[in-house]
Amino acid sequence: MRILLTNDDGIYATGLAAMNKALGEIGEVVTVAPEAEESGTSHSITWTHPLRYRKVFVKNEFFGYAVSGSPADCVKLGIMGIMKEPPELIVSGINMGANVGIHVLYSGTVAAAIEGSILGIPSVAVSVDVSGYADLEYAATISRDIIKEIMKNKLPKCTLMNINIPSVGREEIKGIRFTRQCTEGFEEGVDERKDPGGRTYYWLVGGMEVAVEEEGTDIRSVHDGYISITPLHYDLTDYNLLKHLSSWDWSSVEEDICKFKGITR
Amino acid sequence: MRILLTNDDGIYATGLAAMNKALGEIGEVVTVAPEAEESGTSHSITWTHPLRYRKVFVKNEFFGYAVSGSPADCVKLGIMGIMKEPPELIVSGINMGANVGIHVLYSGTVAAAIEGSILGIPSVAVSVDVSGYADLEYAATISRDIIKEIMKNKLPKCTLMNINIPSVGREEIKGIRFTRQCTEGFEEGVDERKDPGGRTYYWLVGGMEVAVEEEGTDIRSVHDGYISITPLHYDLTDYNLLKHLSSWDWSSVEEDICKFKGITR
Repeated sequence: MRILLTNDDGIYATGLAAMNKALGEIGEVVTVAPEAEESGTSHSITWTHPLRYRKVFVKNEFFGYAVSGSPADCVKLGIMGIMKEPPELIVSGINMGANVGIHVLYSGTVAAAIEGSILGIPSVAVSVDVSGYADLEYAATISRDIIKEIMKNKLPKCTLMNINIPSVGREEIKGIRFTRQCTEGFEEGVDERKDPGGRTYYWLVGGMEVAVEEEGTDIRSVHDGYISITPLHYDLTDYNLLKHLSSWDWSSVEEDICKFKGITR
Repeated sequence: MRILLTNDDGIYATGLAAMNKALGEIGEVVTVAPEAEESGTSHSITWTHPLRYRKVFVKNEFFGYAVSGSPADCVKLGIMGIMKEPPELIVSGINMGANVGIHVLYSGTVAAAIEGSILGIPSVAVSVDVSGYADLEYAATISRDIIKEIMKNKLPKCTLMNINIPSVGREEIKGIRFTRQCTEGFEEGVDERKDPGGRTYYWLVGGMEVAVEEEGTDIRSVHDGYISITPLHYDLTDYNLLKHLSSWDWSSVEEDICKFKGITR
């Protein structure tokens, strides 16, 4: 099996090396990752300037390709510029930090897997919660075994899997849970400071502890010591709301459209 | 009505000024936008370095706040650092270029509206197709009137609206259509070139013309001369797949989890 491995923590990240090793036991891994950390870059793509890549020897362990761009760029360039044949699987991770709740939206790790799915290839994002203990060897091995099961069952079009490993020792993992993305209970803020020159600057501050109460979510699962497996898709349409839109009163908009066309209704 | 206006084309963009003017007729507009163009930055957030903003006078027309960050940063900083009271509406745009299909995922314009929705405020993204003619005054006026209707009906939690105006003269606009995000038919590629020093570099190349066939989508609507109104949400869970996951065979993963815990099943 040809596997494209990427991440958002960069080509020299320890989580990437752990995943590279674990995946090497089930396939031929081509690692294409950002040359610098790209955490929080979401689904950014590089289009105002060109991309470059260079082959690097990582941690005296494996060769990889370092790309001057985002995780999504790595997937595009990996498939269309570096690999001779397209991969049969894309894995993004292991990310240091859970990608759960709204962090799914900010995450470059998840975005790389979304990009893989857009390009029609089964794609999986893997992250490990680092609020306590993080056992990368375990996270890589168990997520590889989860990925093997996913590949047996086939992912539908436009979907991807988001795996999150709890921050506990391997003896304390309680099992796996199939979860939904938590959409609630985030605390956000801005921390205002002065630099040495007296000028004001701002740090964004975010947390998600308040969301732990919600049952069935990715956040709750990881918090409770279960490996979270969330099926995601990249169709953002709210079909429920779409059904109701035509029953809203749009007559004034329709009148405006006619008015601008010079038609009186 | 207090309105926060942002975009991803930057504080000096013409589309932003047009929207500022149109929204000024229905509320008090605070414009907070990136100091430079941030197209294609998706839902990037700035967390490895702090943010700054400065008040600027735009096009000799209005005061705005230029932020050293992404569109999502602008929404966070606008609400939590700049505005004294939170806005009742967030508008992102007018973006020069349709945000339809998978461009919804790459778009900083749409991401700013998603961020607004996360922060619990009714949010709307507005873009105009620029493949032909772009009448920004019309786009701003008609989208403002659409937004007025949206505000009367109230948006459910976790949702936002994505408005796209076709690239035709105002006399040729056929009406409005309620659409889904197109997820198919994109053509992508990589253009390999040599710089003057003989080193290889790559441009990402993307197109979406092949997706025009699909009925009911945002792409088709804009192509056919209808204003596209797509309800979006930021819960990426694929609930259909989630229902089926527990029927897959996970026994080998469960055995692994036990094995690592030293338990034989």
